[in-house]
Amino acid sequence: MTPAEAVARIVAAIDPLDEAAARAAREHQDRLTKPRGALGSLEDVAVRLAGIAGTCPAPIPHPAAVAVFAADHGVHAQGVTPWPQEVTAQMVANFLAGGAVVNAFANQAGATVTVVDVGVAADLPPTPRLVNRKIAYGTADLSQGPAMTREQAERAIATGAEIAADLVRYGARCLIAGDMGIANTTASAALVSAFTGRDPELVTGRGAGIDDATLRHKIEVVRRGLEANGLPSEEVPAIEVVARVGGLEHAAIAGFILGAAAARVPVILDGVIAGAGALVAAGIAPRAIDYCLAGHRSAEPGHAATLEHLGLRPLVDLELRLGEGTGAVLAHPLVCAAARVMHEVATFDSAGVSEKE
Amino acid sequence: MTPAEAVARIVAAIDPLDEAAARAAREHQDRLTKPRGALGSLEDVAVRLAGIAGTCPAPIPHPAAVAVFAADHGVHAQGVTPWPQEVTAQMVANFLAGGAVVNAFANQAGATVTVVDVGVAADLPPTPRLVNRKIAYGTADLSQGPAMTREQAERAIATGAEIAADLVRYGARCLIAGDMGIANTTASAALVSAFTGRDPELVTGRGAGIDDATLRHKIEVVRRGLEANGLPSEEVPAIEVVARVGGLEHAAIAGFILGAAAARVPVILDGVIAGAGALVAAGIAPRAIDYCLAGHRSAEPGHAATLEHLGLRPLVDLELRLGEGTGAVLAHPLVCAAARVMHEVATFDSAGVSEKE
Repeated sequence: MTPAEAVARIVAAIDPLDEAAARAAREHQDRLTKPRGALGSLEDVAVRLAGIAGTCPAPIPHPAAVAVFAADHGVHAQGVTPWPQEVTAQMVANFLAGGAVVNAFANQAGATVTVVDVGVAADLPPTPRLVNRKIAYGTADLSQGPAMTREQAERAIATGAEIAADLVRYGARCLIAGDMGIANTTASAALVSAFTGRDPELVTGRGAGIDDATLRHKIEVVRRGLEANGLPSEEVPAIEVVARVGGLEHAAIAGFILGAAAARVPVILDGVIAGAGALVAAGIAPRAIDYCLAGHRSAEPGHAATLEHLGLRPLVDLELRLGEGTGAVLAHPLVCAAARVMHEVATFDSAGVSEKE
Repeated sequence: MTPAEAVARIVAAIDPLDEAAARAAREHQDRLTKPRGALGSLEDVAVRLAGIAGTCPAPIPHPAAVAVFAADHGVHAQGVTPWPQEVTAQMVANFLAGGAVVNAFANQAGATVTVVDVGVAADLPPTPRLVNRKIAYGTADLSQGPAMTREQAERAIATGAEIAADLVRYGARCLIAGDMGIANTTASAALVSAFTGRDPELVTGRGAGIDDATLRHKIEVVRRGLEANGLPSEEVPAIEVVARVGGLEHAAIAGFILGAAAARVPVILDGVIAGAGALVAAGIAPRAIDYCLAGHRSAEPGHAATLEHLGLRPLVDLELRLGEGTGAVLAHPLVCAAARVMHEVATFDSAGVSEKE
């Protein structure tokens, strides 16, 4: 099977949400001992989870599994960030040693953390919980032309989908897409601009921290990258867009979302990198987004644009700007709480509580 | 000891935050393997927890204990809500049977739920986890004059503080103030207006769900209550304000906050009822607010005004409007995650990760 065939097979496996289960969830929600609508957005989450699972109430989506997709970026050479490229590999080692923020948050949520090397620019020593699926030693410089070949993008997408299927097979009931890749907010900005049509100036942010001059330069690099790659253009398919200006982790995250949707398991998105991956997934298979929950709204300007474009409402909004999956892991207990209500809360009838007159 | 003396003794036991511990937390935060400030508001939470605990890193504030203070309101007679008054007692039974949303959320967070009857207008059968500290069978109608005597308010405050001390003694490392009381958003609006000086129209909301006509009427009831009680006035002490236009649960929550502060344990506030209680606590002992974290921003308009007045930033913002402590319990894992980072995340030095150039 070619990578293109693998992607087509995953897309074909994605069913629409189960509307009957979602409707049953909405109705059950309205009989519970609380004023109608009093749980705000969490009521929508519970309804969505029922539609995803195809049953009402949906199972509590616990435990979660975080997959951190790691890759390097040729555009790093353009000086878009003050962080050295080797930090990608160093942070992978930190994840594997359990020392990063995503590990602490995952411990809090009872989630596992798996690191998937899809494109780190160094050979990484074999370690438990590191999955070696390296497609390239980083991408080419997107500001000069395509970041990767279409076939590489397809392989990364197929890889992400396989990882999702594996994690579900090993017991995950909720998937979380994380990322690591120095310079990946630059590629994210290019993807967000390409998919939403917004000017690079509006969707390019400070990433892990840059000064005003570097931000202006970063915006120009994104603009040059789009021009060099003939974007935005409605005629360019999503897989081609991520190949031209994305990163290997973006493509893998897109595939991870498709794989979650095919497995009917919810996937919680993190910040702008996962969001850019979701834009790619939406371009390949729009209904895959129905299986996504927005974990948080990051401080990156491109992320708000992404969420608006995808029609997703974030659960956590605390000005996080770290990536790694951190914002999504934080949201996991909120998602579980929304699901748990449907299992444990009494109805007005069963509890003998009077209703509104 | 008179109730007034009991309150004075609790206030005297509240120390300022430990600034050295807070400073150490801020410095440690900046050495962790993440860009500075990348955890947004959670960095402030970790610093605050260190100041509260008086040690860096602060212990992870787990487990939490929820105290749901339940009481009835004479102002119910004014037709400010379509919910019958007996729902207060019915919901208390629901909490004790484990069937309410706060129970489901507490199960998710690993928290206990204790119900404290400070003023339900019915005799409740003795039940495990129900603490009978009834001060009155509901308050008097605040729209006609004082809702309670000053001595009743003091007793409720002392009771709340005792409950906080008891829960800490039994192992709670984080306290959560919940509430139940049909019509208590009316008393909350009166308290918020009295303490913030904002017009009742700006701080009165739809509570558990009312139509436009009832909302207009509710605003007028609040306005009448303030006028009948000589409020707002800077000359009226906070204890007297809660006695005149508050509820017994508001006074108890104020005392619960004072008790948490005296025990150097963080207290997570829920929505507008807990917020109104915090306004009372701030009026009695301003430094008690340093021990508070705002769990969420409720959909009630008076709550945003309250948080602004107290200088608190909410952790969860999902348009919840349920009370019971639900918004605060949802925030508990976020608070724990903020604390956990300080224990488990590696520093740049220890992990061998390069810093920004």
